[in-house]
Amino acid sequence: MKFFSDNAASVHPRVWAAMQAADAPDAGYDGDALSQRLDAAFGDLFARPVAALWVATGTAANCLALSAMVPPYGAVLCHREAHIETDEGGAPGFYTHGAKLILAEGDGAKLTPATITAALAPIRKDVHRVQPHAISITQATEYGRVYTPGEVAAIGALARERNLWLHMDGARFANAVAALDCHPAAMTVEAGVDALSFGCVKNGGMSAEAIVFFADDLAETVLHARKRAGHLQSKGRYLAAQILALIEDGLWLENARAANAAAAEIAAGAGDRLLQPVDANEVFLVLSPAEAAALRKAGFDFYDWTAPAGAPGAARLVTAWNSNPAHVAALARAIAAL
Amino acid sequence: MKFFSDNAASVHPRVWAAMQAADAPDAGYDGDALSQRLDAAFGDLFARPVAALWVATGTAANCLALSAMVPPYGAVLCHREAHIETDEGGAPGFYTHGAKLILAEGDGAKLTPATITAALAPIRKDVHRVQPHAISITQATEYGRVYTPGEVAAIGALARERNLWLHMDGARFANAVAALDCHPAAMTVEAGVDALSFGCVKNGGMSAEAIVFFADDLAETVLHARKRAGHLQSKGRYLAAQILALIEDGLWLENARAANAAAAEIAAGAGDRLLQPVDANEVFLVLSPAEAAALRKAGFDFYDWTAPAGAPGAARLVTAWNSNPAHVAALARAIAAL
Amino acid sequence: MKFFSDNAASVHPRVWAAMQAADAPDAGYDGDALSQRLDAAFGDLFARPVAALWVATGTAANCLALSAMVPPYGAVLCHREAHIETDEGGAPGFYTHGAKLILAEGDGAKLTPATITAALAPIRKDVHRVQPHAISITQATEYGRVYTPGEVAAIGALARERNLWLHMDGARFANAVAALDCHPAAMTVEAGVDALSFGCVKNGGMSAEAIVFFADDLAETVLHARKRAGHLQSKGRYLAAQILALIEDGLWLENARAANAAAAEIAAGAGDRLLQPVDANEVFLVLSPAEAAALRKAGFDFYDWTAPAGAPGAARLVTAWNSNPAHVAALARAIAAL
Amino acid sequence: MKFFSDNAASVHPRVWAAMQAADAPDAGYDGDALSQRLDAAFGDLFARPVAALWVATGTAANCLALSAMVPPYGAVLCHREAHIETDEGGAPGFYTHGAKLILAEGDGAKLTPATITAALAPIRKDVHRVQPHAISITQATEYGRVYTPGEVAAIGALARERNLWLHMDGARFANAVAALDCHPAAMTVEAGVDALSFGCVKNGGMSAEAIVFFADDLAETVLHARKRAGHLQSKGRYLAAQILALIEDGLWLENARAANAAAAEIAAGAGDRLLQPVDANEVFLVLSPAEAAALRKAGFDFYDWTAPAGAPGAARLVTAWNSNPAHVAALARAIAAL
Repeated sequence: MKFFSDNAASVHPRVWAAMQAADAPDAGYDGDALSQRLDAAFGDLFARPVAALWVATGTAANCLALSAMVPPYGAVLCHREAHIETDEGGAPGFYTHGAKLILAEGDGAKLTPATITAALAPIRKDVHRVQPHAISITQATEYGRVYTPGEVAAIGALARERNLWLHMDGARFANAVAALDCHPAAMTVEAGVDALSFGCVKNGGMSAEAIVFFADDLAETVLHARKRAGHLQSKGRYLAAQILALIEDGLWLENARAANAAAAEIAAGAGDRLLQPVDANEVFLVLSPAEAAALRKAGFDFYDWTAPAGAPGAARLVTAWNSNPAHVAALARAIAAL
Repeated sequence: MKFFSDNAASVHPRVWAAMQAADAPDAGYDGDALSQRLDAAFGDLFARPVAALWVATGTAANCLALSAMVPPYGAVLCHREAHIETDEGGAPGFYTHGAKLILAEGDGAKLTPATITAALAPIRKDVHRVQPHAISITQATEYGRVYTPGEVAAIGALARERNLWLHMDGARFANAVAALDCHPAAMTVEAGVDALSFGCVKNGGMSAEAIVFFADDLAETVLHARKRAGHLQSKGRYLAAQILALIEDGLWLENARAANAAAAEIAAGAGDRLLQPVDANEVFLVLSPAEAAALRKAGFDFYDWTAPAGAPGAARLVTAWNSNPAHVAALARAIAAL
Repeated sequence: MKFFSDNAASVHPRVWAAMQAADAPDAGYDGDALSQRLDAAFGDLFARPVAALWVATGTAANCLALSAMVPPYGAVLCHREAHIETDEGGAPGFYTHGAKLILAEGDGAKLTPATITAALAPIRKDVHRVQPHAISITQATEYGRVYTPGEVAAIGALARERNLWLHMDGARFANAVAALDCHPAAMTVEAGVDALSFGCVKNGGMSAEAIVFFADDLAETVLHARKRAGHLQSKGRYLAAQILALIEDGLWLENARAANAAAAEIAAGAGDRLLQPVDANEVFLVLSPAEAAALRKAGFDFYDWTAPAGAPGAARLVTAWNSNPAHVAALARAIAAL
Repeated sequence: MKFFSDNAASVHPRVWAAMQAADAPDAGYDGDALSQRLDAAFGDLFARPVAALWVATGTAANCLALSAMVPPYGAVLCHREAHIETDEGGAPGFYTHGAKLILAEGDGAKLTPATITAALAPIRKDVHRVQPHAISITQATEYGRVYTPGEVAAIGALARERNLWLHMDGARFANAVAALDCHPAAMTVEAGVDALSFGCVKNGGMSAEAIVFFADDLAETVLHARKRAGHLQSKGRYLAAQILALIEDGLWLENARAANAAAAEIAAGAGDRLLQPVDANEVFLVLSPAEAAALRKAGFDFYDWTAPAGAPGAARLVTAWNSNPAHVAALARAIAAL
């Protein structure tokens, strides 16, 4: 009964089917019919013209998008616990050719205009200090928290005011949209987001993520940078097929709702143990070493997490599109019974 | 009847089957059982301990390997028509942080000790000139030519003498091994090759290539660089599955032999039109515009190629593991009848 | 009466004289007799063989040294207020091709084994986290504080234990040596420092800093990197002349002692206003806006500084090798009289 | 009697005087009065508003300018024997973060629209090929040849047509202007040049070159990049002083004329030995080993050069602003007498 992460879950059958339907030879790279359909498919999703392209990983998606936003001598502002800061092996430094990350605070790994402003305040406008060129936020956040459209818009307004691009790392974007039940445009382009890493791998895909550009001029740069990074696969149609299978018939939201519901069920019995409100598909719990051991003995697998001050220990539990309902129910009962 | 390239061919059924067999969740990234088996599987293939890892593209394979061989202030020597020079969108410059490519000559895109020596001769040993640190050769070459083990060994000896690493871009390595019917170790590690980009995508795979390191200390660097390049996929087991399906039961050679045989059949009737001996699965032909149009009218698709001096035109025809025998025969007849 | 910084002070007459004595043509770049003397001259200073080379700025010195210590996918640990983090315009990211800076704490911009260990603790040893490869400390620090040889040695021991290189940014190294009256080797090579940026510009030089390598294999890399960074000046003899003028006859310590003494005189009357002990040639004071205005009205120029919590304001005053004794005395009196 | 290079000649007395006049403390970096005067001084020289800044070397000047013109995934076209290709230790790759150099042909290291067009012709417009973004020409060239304003304008027109920036490496720009006796604007901005590396070090300066931007938006980028490259010296006034001493009273042309006249005198007796017309201050000669030895025995120092096909040997002789007239006359006689 694995609750390690959603990033190694099985591939959804409809995604498999779409990949197999793409098996007939077509033009290489992104010249095939499926890849060529991405702009329109995402355009439908966001109700406006967009430019969209596939890559293999969220790291590549995030860093390619950022590389179009920030010059090598510039900086991207992100949360101190943002994935790009802590878990991408320095990929932002690689793709941006050495730009800096400016780290800001915020509960639940959520930035706010106030924390962004505080992080920017000490940066004199001169060449000795690295100047910010973009903000990156994660939706849902690294703590499974969700920005409302209004919260994104407040950051978007600040970004515009400061002449900064706004990037959204949407590795779990589907979970956030499902949680808020809002239009995907409302928490992105209408709130000032210029580029979105649209996650598929954690949501039933195999090896494809999308980058969606609302600001058109960024995409052209990324087409070159993607090739240069060795991310332009010759059989790109198999990546496009995955993405289209998820977005063209609503599968992305079905999957995300299932994962969210499982997390909510686990959280329901966790009471005061919850370290963060459970907005999406991640549950962070206070858990003593003995309690963690007991759960593991009962067959539940999950990661330990850094305990906050005063807590005896902590854990992270992640649900996926295919979390087994019986396992989820058993885990919820086990936690409630601790 | 498409003879554009082998790089967009369908995925072999046994590769599909292996991917589907990998669908059960396992550890993320390269911690799964399949990824963990790569070193041993390639160790069996090359009859010695090696380190092997997957990436999504040949460009990433080549450039990651080179990035471990050359410092940013150094250079890699390659053929003037090497894929890394002409078709990777500047990826070597990205992965090596700006190292140079030193271009050398050679018929059929094959380097020789003499052409390598000639290219290195003008490089004074001082800090004003960029110094070579590695040689990269392509097997089979960009013109479908094959280096014999002895030819590789001669380059390998030169590399050792000059204290240079030796990399082999084996996007069509299987075709070369099939063509020579030699042990894969004989044309690589035993001939002085330090790292090999082992191609799968052109040979029945979908989205996985392997990098095989014979010089152990290079692999550690590349593990970090792969992550940093956004090439460490979280569901890496699907890539490992493809590679293992190809190499563990000899499918890689079956597929390559089929492609080579198809090319040989086409070449058989081409006579003096051949611009290069057909060693593997690529056929380069003199073809006038009228002849090319006639073939296309007959239903054959292929790329035009730069005509050599004196020729009215040229074409490249590439066969794949699944080239349709009837199409191949028809093409052979059509060419012979021109 | 300027107390802005020591970095724009006049050039010492003996430095001028040495430059003019170098005016006869000699070999270009670093092939001239003076440049060739640097290794030996610094070898005498540090009482052991070293490799030394000139560059134009402290930023280049720091970042070239670090570039030889850390791979692009690695990190350098430094203080949160280190010059390389806050004031070099992202140069470490440029020279290291995107390596990260890991920020650690410490009073007066001084690192300790404890603060270093705390900063390293959360970094799991895997490819998702950027791994540390070096530590950089500043001597004297950005707050004019000095590490004792024992303090450096404790950091050096930690560095060795963790397999990290140790770099010292010695933009004001002379002031630190003068303050402690110790042998320069005692606070560097004997304490585990592998490379030192030896500052000259703030200490009577014009346009030359030295990088001194105690770990020999680093220098070879930097010779290439210096050229590649456009820092190998063709008339390098004028840079070597400056450095030799400072170090061969003890001028570097004379100048530093004069600057330190001036700072001590200013500090003597400052009492509780001092934000940091005045170890070298920088004085950080609590100063209300009104007091700052009064000093400026009296003709003293200096920079405002970020006030610590609870303070009405703060200022930084820096003395130099040629601080006018009358100005210094006047400033000391003016501060004491506030 | 040294004719090695102009790059290690003595500093002109008026340049020394200007540096010493700059000794009083002023604002740091480029905030001083002299640095602030550069835009206006070069504006006068080129008869229009320009942006100008100092750096320490021609390599830094060239590569900073190019870094503002070409994205990391792009390319700069230059001559096969351009200094940026052969003698800058890979600095273009460093400053541009890995952009390529596309090499073109041309007698005397001079590009022409035809050779540029030929080099660009094979570059398909797709992401697999690195796309050109700029052209760089050297004036006077690496063979001491000079482009006429009309020749530059023809290249400038091609650049505009192809949407490419045009950079001029003017390490010996003064010699070219002196040779043609034309207005400096005529062979730069009026001919389509966007940025000029204006050389001073080879022409009586010590350690300062200027970058002059005719296209205003490039300068802002370079201000950041210069700092990031460690080229923003804190005592920048000494660099500005050198440049102003050369350009404000015509010294740059006096010095260049002297060097050119010396080269012309040497060339006058060289007859058929000349490998290139002597347009500026470099003389390339056919010289057998025995002849070279004879000249050296007579006290003349110079570099051997790569002999063209059929020649027994070759040499390069370079004159400088202060070439000793007696030495020049003696050399001219010695060559004529061979």
